[in-house]
This record gives sequence, C-alpha cells and structure tokens, in this order.
Amino acid sequence: MTTYNTQMTQTDDDIETLLKEMTLQEKAAQLAGTYVGTMDETRTVDDAEEMVREHGIGFVTPFGYGASPHRDSTKVIEIANRLQRIAREETRLGIPILIPVDAIHGHAYVEDTTVFPHNLAIAAARDRGLAEQIGTVTATEVAATGSNLTYGPTCDIARDPRWGRTFETFGESPYLVGELASAKARGIHDAPVDVAAMAKHFPAYGEPARGEDASPVDKSLSSLYRDFLPPFEAVLAEGIEGVMPSYNSINGVPSHGSNYWLSEVLRNDLGFEGYVASDWNGINMLHQDHRVAEDQKDAIHQSFTAGVDVHSLGEGDHIDHIVSLVESDKVDETAVDASVRRVLQLKSDLGLFEDPFVNAEESDDTLNNDTHRGVALEAARESMTLLKNDDDCLPFDPGIDEVLVTGPNADSLVNQVGGWSLKKEHELDGTTVREGIEGVVSAETTVTYERGSGIDESDGMDAAVAAAANADAAVVVLGENWYLHEFGPQDVNGPTDRFPNRAQLTLPAAQRELLEAVLETETPTALVLVTGRALAISWATEHVDAILQAYYPGVEGGKAVAETLFGEHNPGGKLPISVPRSEGHLPVRHNYLPHPYPIGPDEHLPSYDPLFAFGHGLSYTDFEYRDLSVENELLRENSAVCVSVTLTNTGDRAGEEVVQLFGGRDYSSVVTPVTELVDFQRVALGKGEETTVEFEVPADAFDVVHPDGTSQFEGGSISLQCESLKTSLTAVDN
Amino acid sequence: MTTYNTQMTQTDDDIETLLKEMTLQEKAAQLAGTYVGTMDETRTVDDAEEMVREHGIGFVTPFGYGASPHRDSTKVIEIANRLQRIAREETRLGIPILIPVDAIHGHAYVEDTTVFPHNLAIAAARDRGLAEQIGTVTATEVAATGSNLTYGPTCDIARDPRWGRTFETFGESPYLVGELASAKARGIHDAPVDVAAMAKHFPAYGEPARGEDASPVDKSLSSLYRDFLPPFEAVLAEGIEGVMPSYNSINGVPSHGSNYWLSEVLRNDLGFEGYVASDWNGINMLHQDHRVAEDQKDAIHQSFTAGVDVHSLGEGDHIDHIVSLVESDKVDETAVDASVRRVLQLKSDLGLFEDPFVNAEESDDTLNNDTHRGVALEAARESMTLLKNDDDCLPFDPGIDEVLVTGPNADSLVNQVGGWSLKKEHELDGTTVREGIEGVVSAETTVTYERGSGIDESDGMDAAVAAAANADAAVVVLGENWYLHEFGPQDVNGPTDRFPNRAQLTLPAAQRELLEAVLETETPTALVLVTGRALAISWATEHVDAILQAYYPGVEGGKAVAETLFGEHNPGGKLPISVPRSEGHLPVRHNYLPHPYPIGPDEHLPSYDPLFAFGHGLSYTDFEYRDLSVENELLRENSAVCVSVTLTNTGDRAGEEVVQLFGGRDYSSVVTPVTELVDFQRVALGKGEETTVEFEVPADAFDVVHPDGTSQFEGGSISLQCESLKTSLTAVDN
Repeated sequence: MTTYNTQMTQTDDDIETLLKEMTLQEKAAQLAGTYVGTMDETRTVDDAEEMVREHGIGFVTPFGYGASPHRDSTKVIEIANRLQRIAREETRLGIPILIPVDAIHGHAYVEDTTVFPHNLAIAAARDRGLAEQIGTVTATEVAATGSNLTYGPTCDIARDPRWGRTFETFGESPYLVGELASAKARGIHDAPVDVAAMAKHFPAYGEPARGEDASPVDKSLSSLYRDFLPPFEAVLAEGIEGVMPSYNSINGVPSHGSNYWLSEVLRNDLGFEGYVASDWNGINMLHQDHRVAEDQKDAIHQSFTAGVDVHSLGEGDHIDHIVSLVESDKVDETAVDASVRRVLQLKSDLGLFEDPFVNAEESDDTLNNDTHRGVALEAARESMTLLKNDDDCLPFDPGIDEVLVTGPNADSLVNQVGGWSLKKEHELDGTTVREGIEGVVSAETTVTYERGSGIDESDGMDAAVAAAANADAAVVVLGENWYLHEFGPQDVNGPTDRFPNRAQLTLPAAQRELLEAVLETETPTALVLVTGRALAISWATEHVDAILQAYYPGVEGGKAVAETLFGEHNPGGKLPISVPRSEGHLPVRHNYLPHPYPIGPDEHLPSYDPLFAFGHGLSYTDFEYRDLSVENELLRENSAVCVSVTLTNTGDRAGEEVVQLFGGRDYSSVVTPVTELVDFQRVALGKGEETTVEFEVPADAFDVVHPDGTSQFEGGSISLQCESLKTSLTAVDN
Repeated sequence: MTTYNTQMTQTDDDIETLLKEMTLQEKAAQLAGTYVGTMDETRTVDDAEEMVREHGIGFVTPFGYGASPHRDSTKVIEIANRLQRIAREETRLGIPILIPVDAIHGHAYVEDTTVFPHNLAIAAARDRGLAEQIGTVTATEVAATGSNLTYGPTCDIARDPRWGRTFETFGESPYLVGELASAKARGIHDAPVDVAAMAKHFPAYGEPARGEDASPVDKSLSSLYRDFLPPFEAVLAEGIEGVMPSYNSINGVPSHGSNYWLSEVLRNDLGFEGYVASDWNGINMLHQDHRVAEDQKDAIHQSFTAGVDVHSLGEGDHIDHIVSLVESDKVDETAVDASVRRVLQLKSDLGLFEDPFVNAEESDDTLNNDTHRGVALEAARESMTLLKNDDDCLPFDPGIDEVLVTGPNADSLVNQVGGWSLKKEHELDGTTVREGIEGVVSAETTVTYERGSGIDESDGMDAAVAAAANADAAVVVLGENWYLHEFGPQDVNGPTDRFPNRAQLTLPAAQRELLEAVLETETPTALVLVTGRALAISWATEHVDAILQAYYPGVEGGKAVAETLFGEHNPGGKLPISVPRSEGHLPVRHNYLPHPYPIGPDEHLPSYDPLFAFGHGLSYTDFEYRDLSVENELLRENSAVCVSVTLTNTGDRAGEEVVQLFGGRDYSSVVTPVTELVDFQRVALGKGEETTVEFEVPADAFDVVHPDGTSQFEGGSISLQCESLKTSLTAVDN
C-alpha cells in the first residue's frame, strides 16, 4: 500500500483544506461522472480507470444499472475496489469516488442479490416496517459490492397508469408515497453500512402528458405542491443525501434547468443541504430535447446555475465546460466550491476517505443470504392483493388432483422481477409461479404447465385449453413483461408499438383469448396478474371468479403467489392505485377534485368510477369495523386529531388487514380533494380476535393548498372515513 | 301607450341620473336574471312577468335555450314584447330587460330559424368571412325574435375530444379559435341590428379532467396564457360586450369566484370594460359543488367580490342577498353601482331605452330567409373534410343506377344539427343526407334508404346489407346524436353510460357491425361521419376507401354532404382537431411540447401520431405548393414577417384549398410548442390556376410564454412550414 496523498478527511476544516488545494480542473472533475457499459457510446472499465486517473472524476457507475456488461458479483467487487484504489493512489489528491447504482428494488442489476417486489407492490403491502427492512437489505447488498449510493427511493406519484414507470412508484396517494419512500430511506440509513440515498425525480414526474415517459408535466402550483411535493418533503425530513431532478419540463421549464425548483424551493424553502445530481444525461437534454439551450455548454451553464451540482454522465466535456464557464466569468468559482464541498462532505460522511474498499469474502456471506431472501418473500406475501373472489373460488385445495398453470407470466422470472433488474432468466435466482405451485400442492397433485400464450403473440393455446379441460383448477398468469421507461428497450421487448405500450391498458388479444378459452372449459379458474401497471381488465372482471394482483413480485414472488392461491397465505394487500375501466376513463384517482354538473349529476358518468378502487383488497377471512371515533372534535393548528376504530376478525382464519383512514374538508377556501388517504396501519388478527387501531393525524394533513402553492390551516368541518364508517371533526382557526 | 317613467337614456349623465334614482333593491334587481321553462324548478311566462313587474329584474331568458317550452317564433316575439312592455310600463323606473339566448350556431332553439353547422365545422372551413356572415345572420335572427344578447362566441379550445362540448369549439389551435371567434363577434356587431355578444367560457374550460364536463382545469400559468387566453384576447379586441366565466375551477379556484381571473386579469390586465354574467347557476355552484362557499349567500358574496356582475339565474334570492351584503357592509354599494352601470350602459348602447320592441311582421321576412339559408349551405359545403379517398372512390357518379343510404345519421335532422338546437325532427326545417342524395343524383338513379343501425342499438342491419349488395354505391352515415354538456339529457339520449359518452371515442358495436357488413358486400362505400367530436375510427380508416367528416353540418348539411359525395362540390375543409387512434393516445395535439427520450427516441411511440392530423383534408383536385419564402429574414419585436407561397391547382377541376402556415421556435428560453398554426387563408383556384398567397405574421405570434404567464419576444431562429415546404427566419432581440 502506498501512502495516500490526503489524510482521512473528516472535519469541515479538512474539507476546506482539501478544497483550497484543488485546482479548478480538479474541482470540476468532482462534479462529473462516467460509466461502464454501452449507452450512446461504449465505456470499458479501462476507460473508467482512465477517467479517474487522468481527470480525478468524482463519480463512476461501472455496474448496478441496465447498460453495464458486469453483473457477476465477484467481478463487480473487484472493479469497485480497483477504481477506488486508482482514485486513492494514482490521483494527486487521492479523493475516493462515489459509485452510484440503480438499486430500485434491491441491488437487482447484479447477480446473487435479493430482488424485491417493485415499489408498487410494497405500496400494496402498506407496511412501513417492511419498507424499512427492504431499504436496509438493499443498502447492505449495495455496500457489499463496493457501491455507496443508490438512486432512490422513488418519490414520484403515479397519476397515469399508461406511464411506463408506474411500477417504480408507491402509487397514487401523496401520503402513501411519502410514508413508504421515507421508510425506505430510513431503512437505508439504519443499515450497518454507509450508503447514501437519493430522492427522485424532483419535483414532478408521474403525470407526463399522454402517459409518455419524460414528457412535460403541466400542472398548477396547487397540484404540484399538494400532490407532488409531499413525498419529497417526507424523505428530506429523513436527511436524504441527494436529490435527482426529473427529466421532464414542469410548466415550460426543464427540472434540470429550473432555478425555481432546485434553488428557491429545494434549497431555500425546503432547506435541502445535500447534493443534486443529474438524472444521467438530463443536462444535455436541455439542448437536445427541451431546446432551451442552444448547445451543450449552454445546457451545462443553465443547469449548474439552476442548482445541479453533479453531471452524472458529464465526463471530460463537463469538466472542460465548467472550467471554461468559470474562466469566462459566467460561473463564479465560489459556486463551484459550494457544489464540490457537498460532494466531498458526502464522501467524508460515507467514510470513503477512511476506507472505500469492500471485502469480497464478507460480501459473499452478505449477498442474497437467507435473511434477505426472507424479507423478499415476506414482502411478496404482504403485497398480494385479492381483487375478486366470487363464491370463495380461492383458495384452491392443495390436495387437488390436477392443476393447470398457464400464461406468459406463469414461468418467467424475468417478467416476475420486471424492469430495473437483470433480464436473463439464468442470471436470476428465484421461484416462478409454476415452481411455487409445484412446491405448495400435495405430493399427489399433478401440476401441468402449458405456456398457452406469449405476452403479445399466440403460443400453444390449444394445449393449454386441453389441459384446462382435464384439470380441477386452472391458474392463468397474465400481464406484462420486463420493461423500463417507455416500455423498452426493444431488444428485450420487441417493437415499440407492441404491448406493453402506453396507449393500451387492456390485455392483448393473445392473452385475452387464452383466458377466454380456459374459462370456456368451466374449470375453476384464478387469474393472476403480473404487471407493472393497473391494467383495464373489465372483461376479465366480469367473467373470472378470482383475480389476484401480484404486481412485479420479485424473485420470491412465485412462492408468494402459490401460497396465496392455495391458502397457505391469507392475502392482505390493498390497491395503491385505482384500476381503470378503460383507457378512456383516465385519469381515475381517489383524490379527485369536486366540480359542478351543469345539467345535473345524473347526466354524468361518475367522476370516480374505477373497476377497483384505490384501497381495495379482499381477504380469506372477514373483518368487521365499528366505533370510528375522534378523541378531540375540535382541531387546532399544529395539533393532531386522535382517531380510533375497532376491528374484529369475524371470519374463520387468521389474517392481516390494512386499516385505512381517509379524510377531507367539507368546505374550504379553495377547491380541495373530495377525500385523501391520511393514515393507515397494517394489523394481524387471529380468528375471532379484536383490536382497536389508533391514528394520530396531524392537523396539517388537512391544510389547504392555495394557487400560489402555499399551505394554510383554516377553520371548517372535516369528514373522516374508514371502510364504510364515517365521522367528523371541526378545525378551529386560532 | 303610457308615458315611460324614464327618458331615453343615452348619455353617461343619464345613466348616472338613473342610478341615483334607484333604490338598492332596484339596483340589485338589475344584476339578476330569471327564465321561463323547467330547470331545477319550473318558471312560466307569468312567473317571469311577475319577476319583472315586482322586482324589476334585469335579465329574462324566456326562450332561445334548451329548457324553454316556447319555440314558435310568433309566440316568442309576443313574449319578448310583453316582457319589455311590463318592464317599460309597469315598473317604477321603466328599465328595459336584456333577453339573452343560446344562439350557439344560429338561433337554433326557435323554429323557423337558420341552423348553421356547429363551430367545429366552421373551424374546418377556415374562412373568416364565412364566420362573420354566420355571426351577422345569427344576430339578425336573434334580434328578430326580440332578444338582444347571444351567449357566444365560444372561445374555448378543444384539448380533449372526450369532452361533450368539443363540437361547440373552433378546435385545438388557439390561433384558429381566436380568429374565428373574433370573426363571429365582428359579424354580430356588423349586423344591422343591436345584439350584444358574450365571450365564453373564461378563462379555461376546454381541458376538463378526464374529459368530464365542468371538471377542473389544472394547468400551469404557461399553458393558460399560451393556449387558453389568446382567443379571449382576440374577441376582447373586437369590443365584445360580455364575458362569461367557466363553470369549472382553475387550479383550485372556481372561475366564478376568481378575483385573479375576473378582476386582475380580465379587468386590469386585459382592460375589459363590459359586464360579466354567470353561466346560469355558476354562482350557487361555489357552494353546491366546488364547496368553497358554505352557503348560497357566501357564494354570491365571493362571486360578486371576484367580479361577476350578474347572476343569470339569481332571481329574488340574489336580489335579497346583494341587498343584505351591502346592508351588512360586506359589499360596498359603490361596487354594486359599478356593476349596475355596466348593465345600464349595455341596455343603453343596444338602444333598449329607445325601443326594446320587435315588429312581428318584419321578423317573418327575416327569419330563415333564403339569404340566410344560403349562408348555412355554403358553411356546410366549406366545412366538408375529406379524410380519405383511396383509388378516387369519391366522387360517386350521380348517374349511378342504385345507391344505398344507410346509418343512424343518414336521415335524422336532429342528429345533423346536434345539441344547442331544437331536438324534435318536426320542429326543424332542413335536408337530411338521404334527402340531399335524392336531390343530387340523376332522375334514373334509385336511392334506397335503410336505417341499418341506431346510434347504440341494432336496427335493421340485414335489410341494409341486402340493399348494399344490390347497390352500385353505399353511403354509410354514422356518428353521434344530439347531446350537450356531459352527453345529456337522458330524455333525449338514453342512459348516461350509453354511447355517446366521454369514455368511448370508438364507434359503438351496432354502427361498427353495420359498416363491416356493408363493406363485406364489396359495393363501393363511403363513410360519412356526423359527429361532434373526433372519433377514433382506426378500424374504419383501415378498411373503408372514402371517409368524409361532416361534423354537425346543420339544416343544410344533408345537401352539402350529398353534393360532396357526388362531386357537385369539391371538398376543401381541414381538420380543426387531431383525430386520435384510440382513447389511450389522448391527448393528441399538433402543438405539443418537445421532451427528452431517456432510453432513446426509437423506444417511444411518437408524441404526435394521430390517425389524421390537425389540418388534414383532401380535395378532388391536386394542389402543388412551391416557393415558400420570407421577405424579411430578420424579425424584430413589434414588427411582422411577410411570408409567401405559391399554389397551383394541378388537378382536373376547380377547388378550394386552405393554405396553412405553421411555425415555432427552434430554441427558446423556456420550452415552447414544436409548432403551431400561425396563419391560414382559404383560396379558390380553377383548374390549372396559380396564385401566390401572402401572410403577414406579427412577431408576437412567436412570443415566448414564461411560467408566470408573461409573454416575451426574444431572439433566436424560427422555423416555418407550409405543407411539406420549410423555411426559417431569425428573431433579433433589439
């Protein structure tokens, strides 16, 4: 080992000393990143090494994201250590690098890791503790490969199910997204390793025009502050280290170039002190796509001035442009210093100046261990959402003679994990639905598998139908395959106009025909949906007795689905997103704003008439709600209301229920949502057991957001609802 | 005749004198209206007379709108005269009343009037002179029945074809809407009668959430100022007398209660000096629906304070509440005076103090005369938009042996006029498509009519198909029926969930099956669409050779359709709205904002990929464009650019072509639309003729709208496009 050029920087003074030592070039290098893999251009590990060695670049993403060729866990550890060694030993100042990864649902782009259900599933589970555990496991596995920063948690709310990133969100409720994103951030921070987290995508990404990824979000300030910002406020309160702007423009201004959002709101109003890094190439897009910058240098000038500290894919061009902007007095070097200070502080806080290396042998015990897998299984179980179960079709009897398992998602780990994961079946370690069912039925039961259909093309329907006719039960596993962003890339998913795409939320013909043909055999049938979005399954809802929404349930998802279908697990998930009847019904959200009916309410289709409502989810047991009451009927500013409700498991088996509290103002100074989710609690009750669930809802849950975006407490009556129970209280102003 | 209590008030002094004479009660009464007919409650003519006599109410709508039982032209004249006589002779001050009507496309709720194509059709015609003529004829017929105010022109832009009021708009382009709404206003003002006009619905109504009528418009200020306000600015420049707020809320604030929009923007920024009247019951909706007012009185307080002068359905309650608000010092009487002054000024300007009566005999010669009908026929002709014409399927030969006419809109005047019109066949005087075809084919041609289908139910398909098999050509006339607002009322249209409704833009099964079956006969077939919206006719577009979009073409529409199908008229209409491929593709607009493609543009379905684009429309002849050029390549603020293009009719018959100029900025300080319609001109060219069309586009057409709503000229390159020709110029800042 050589002696490092820098001491172990720990204190503010040390950072200032280091800053003073740095040339402008070296500072600019700390604000740029590079990668290994093929995006527009290809970068090898050698290239990355050179970027570190020659430029002292601050960030490298050599693995842990979609475009890297390096997925083997042993290999990626070696790469991480090698890059850190170069940074420490072969650069003038020896500043370690940050290695960010896309660990969206576990460190899922590296083999031998634990791949969790996607966030939308976690939102169905409605379990803050579970989200924390996932954060902790993810951080632990990320650190075990030598990375020190994960891009997430996702704070986007899902406002259009056509959007290809719906599955990455915690759903449509700002409160729910905020609770689970902050729980995940807490989990990352509570891990016994030093990994930073990054809130994304600030400030608003989840309602792109026509559902097209990264297209403009054009909303009022009322909506931006009421619907989109709360999750970010929640994670900022957890001390999140980084914030990533959204790719899209907000009201004409790209987030990556918005001084208003990045400086006035994020830094000044919300008091964020961490660093802001571009979403990959988001800075150049100011020039290339948004067309608000006439060239790349202007784009960098705009985004840096707006408040973006780090250009994640900046490389040497970014360094050169920053230097040039300072030298031509367009950017003040003190501003560069401020950005560099944030980066160095983070590296210091993460202990990278002390020890940026990872021990490969220890990592081997950490990655994908049984404890981690257990969390993944529990997460998949808790997320299972039973949408329909007429005539107690489910659970099926595990002692049944023969069960047919069919459908394009019945035996596909790749489709089961969904995007932001490894995408080759052999690279994944998990249980498909087919395998799960084989594991859960009796030794005497015959499990027949026929694929029956592809995602968007026919594949052996006749064999599947013949098998269904002979079987005592059929499990039809339909839905979507692996995709990200705008349902790509094509090398995984085929042409862009094929399902899944943004224009179609109904099942494609091949899948629909398989389902119809199986139903015609009159064999008892359960439909399982492995999907990233809320598909418009109107036909299926009318004709199938049992429907289980499985989301993208991760590597243990097949086991959780099987346990649920055959009654080993009693489902308790609740929809985190409204299921539309058709594309023509969009948007469909529980927290819509009331409005007039010019020729009478009877002349309108309902404003909120989903196929399945936000919060819907059945159980194999029955829960009875009673005695919804508020402790204090007068609510004052900065106080809280204590609400309780009694829940009894009146059915014949144990189960878990998510108790959900909704509330809203009856009258307010501006139009406010008819209702909103304001709290929830997941409880387990044995057969016959009873419990009283208590909520303490802060008064600001009922703040009224004004057209300028400010929130205010005001007097007036408030209605609360829990299941079919209702109560009210009165807000008192002063 | 008695002597009137007031002199003929003409001057400002007279109005001030009158104001001083008025009690608070009398003033308040000038700010309220009543009606005759059945809405929530029923009001008879006697009731209205009493409201005038006892309260001196300022506004009465006894006819000329949907809920009135009085439709006979002789009768309505008598009612108007009687009410004015009571106002003049039996009230203390003798102030005449204003009688507003819903003359949306002609005075269409009164018999023996001229019913024009709806605005969407007029927008297809792209003929400012035609829109003026329609305004003039409408005002003339309105005045001939004793009314003096028409609710219109509509300044709404259509941003969601699911919206049930799409057909009332001039389409999706702010420029096009502004040009035609202001042309119509000019026409009203140029009429040889005194009729006031009212711009509606201010400031933004045409992009309601999920397409549901009167649901919230939640947009950025950028979009509100760039897309929604320009048409209002255009009609205000014409000296429009009234403005009507929109029913919905804008960014949390109902328009009827928005001080920002009604006072700060409309009065202060835009300098509007006329009067603002509620859209019917729009004030009470602040309480009933928006829930921003705790009771009716609070609603009146809020709306009056915001800037609504007149409560169109206020009646006695409004009078009492205004009086009470003044007496309790919540409203200043000087504010009431200001509102009353506007109303009295308008009544004075319209000459109502001199002579509010109408001569029934003269009216008989005026209403629905041949000149007026001629304008309606010309309007219908010019609007005809030929969407597809493969293999020159059209025009059909008028000497053909047998033609089948089929479909639910082939022989229905009611469906042909659409909403905001009389809704009983026998009350309408016009030509259906069937009748039009009978009139246009040769004496030897057999015209067979079979309905073939209802709008949303089967009706005689077999007979239609049999006739198609025998015919030499088939004309299938499909589409929508009579509706308004949210596709009501049910007593006309059946249950709300049946087509037409907001969730479905595809043809209903019954119509689609008829079309399919006729096509299977392989008889040459033309599809004619009589619709209020842009239906998603993907299947038909794939399978039918010829498609003619007829909109709601009015009473002469059947003749215009027939002339077009059989070649007497050469179509020249251009789509004023983009036709979507499916509901899942919404919104689809030519002037969308550019945005990034995170994993590459090839991975996206196109951002703008309509079935038929805005501006599309075929002709039976061919037009060749060449030499698109700009006179001045540098454009300065407050100047204009002169653009010319040469057009040649290279086909074998005369025709009309709408030359459309599109433009947009290549780079700008905020994100701007990829392109916009900036000018158009409809020209007629004989076979072989050539002309050079010149446009003078003001620099502010390329102003950049910032997030705070302000518009600014800035330097930078601008691209122009006309058909497939392109050119550019450079904006120079100072």
